[in-house]
Amino acid sequence: MSASRSDGFSKSDIRALVFDVFGTVVDWRTSISRQAAEFGSKHGVEADWNQFADDWRAGYGAGMAKVNAGEDEWKIVDRIHRERLDVLLEQYEFSTIDEDELVEFNKSWHRLDGWPDSTSGLTRLKSKFTIASLSNGNVALLTNMAKYANLPWDAVLSAELTSKYKPHPRAYQRTAELLGLEHSQVMLVAAHNNDLRGAIDAGLRAALVTRPDEFGDSKQPDLEPEPDFDYFAKDFNDLADQLGCE
Amino acid sequence: MSASRSDGFSKSDIRALVFDVFGTVVDWRTSISRQAAEFGSKHGVEADWNQFADDWRAGYGAGMAKVNAGEDEWKIVDRIHRERLDVLLEQYEFSTIDEDELVEFNKSWHRLDGWPDSTSGLTRLKSKFTIASLSNGNVALLTNMAKYANLPWDAVLSAELTSKYKPHPRAYQRTAELLGLEHSQVMLVAAHNNDLRGAIDAGLRAALVTRPDEFGDSKQPDLEPEPDFDYFAKDFNDLADQLGCE
Repeated sequence: MSASRSDGFSKSDIRALVFDVFGTVVDWRTSISRQAAEFGSKHGVEADWNQFADDWRAGYGAGMAKVNAGEDEWKIVDRIHRERLDVLLEQYEFSTIDEDELVEFNKSWHRLDGWPDSTSGLTRLKSKFTIASLSNGNVALLTNMAKYANLPWDAVLSAELTSKYKPHPRAYQRTAELLGLEHSQVMLVAAHNNDLRGAIDAGLRAALVTRPDEFGDSKQPDLEPEPDFDYFAKDFNDLADQLGCE
Repeated sequence: MSASRSDGFSKSDIRALVFDVFGTVVDWRTSISRQAAEFGSKHGVEADWNQFADDWRAGYGAGMAKVNAGEDEWKIVDRIHRERLDVLLEQYEFSTIDEDELVEFNKSWHRLDGWPDSTSGLTRLKSKFTIASLSNGNVALLTNMAKYANLPWDAVLSAELTSKYKPHPRAYQRTAELLGLEHSQVMLVAAHNNDLRGAIDAGLRAALVTRPDEFGDSKQPDLEPEPDFDYFAKDFNDLADQLGCE
């Protein structure tokens, strides 16, 4: 991509990289499908667990959109996940399950595996930049996930700290401000063009890292950047190479 | 200290350790004194730089108290440090200094050395607990400091996320809530009894780790815990031993 933009910024202005997490850093679909299959097996339920993972995930965007539109009070993603789970368990005809077990199963989203390059690529990027999460996931979810998946964040930042979900501009801008940086000194790294569009519109920079397997065969991933994105990489090690990290 | 309290909690309930930072994790006085001496030397000013460090630090508590009392708008610690620095430079008879250089010198507080046991002790504690900062320092300051001093936080949490400074109860309680935990599942580790008192009063648990050299000979450190504190250790490795960390 372009080394400098018409607005005068160059690569060397970037001080921090902030990362979308679900799909960009971790493989939520495989991880949720596996944990759901174990949960189903324990409770004598058979189903297509990839479909179950997709159905669970489908509650996420809808729940956040209602919050951003002011149609719902602020609620963290753990709660959005739980409300969706309660609906799904009925649809998939689970019998009544103990509350403690439901709380634990809902935390499947805290136990998502990184992509093969996530830990090594982030570690390289961390040597040159401040690296932080910038996810709609809540702080507890992201903190637990970082321990589980060995994600070496310098800081765990989240839309929870703004009470506005991405792609609301405040979610991006507040993150840069918490890091003590100008908006333009921070680059979002994500596998999703709509998230990167939000970052650019909020004054941040944008790097598309493709994750062709995120959705299995259920949905088309974003494989091409928009013209004004700053970087385009096939994984975090490729991005580290392009950014001159050892 | 007691393995269980009269309120029924036991050691095994602790899930996260949150740390006071200035003085508890890092040796601010020696680090500021050294950087101030370099700055003074460059500008031809001679002074007692330990005293300068103490004088700079003295603006911190007063600035935060005004915010908590509602006598001043919310301001981050970087700004409190800067306002105090502007006063001190006049007192110490510095001539006019370039703004960029002042911004950089004010960030001396982002470059504080850990105590000898800080990195090794935190790494051991991290193997068993979620570990996070809980400082009045702002997120950018703490994030930069963690990179500088090699502090392996799972999450960088700060009073900045509450807009109330410790010892306001919300600073402690909000931190536990961001970690998805009950207040009583979180223990503050600090070298200062007033901070630990605030944590206990807010429903958290408390561990005094003594830092006898924090203030040099300028002020008496806290060397004895109050009776209802949960742990009392001489450094982070001692605390890790007591908490059963490998």
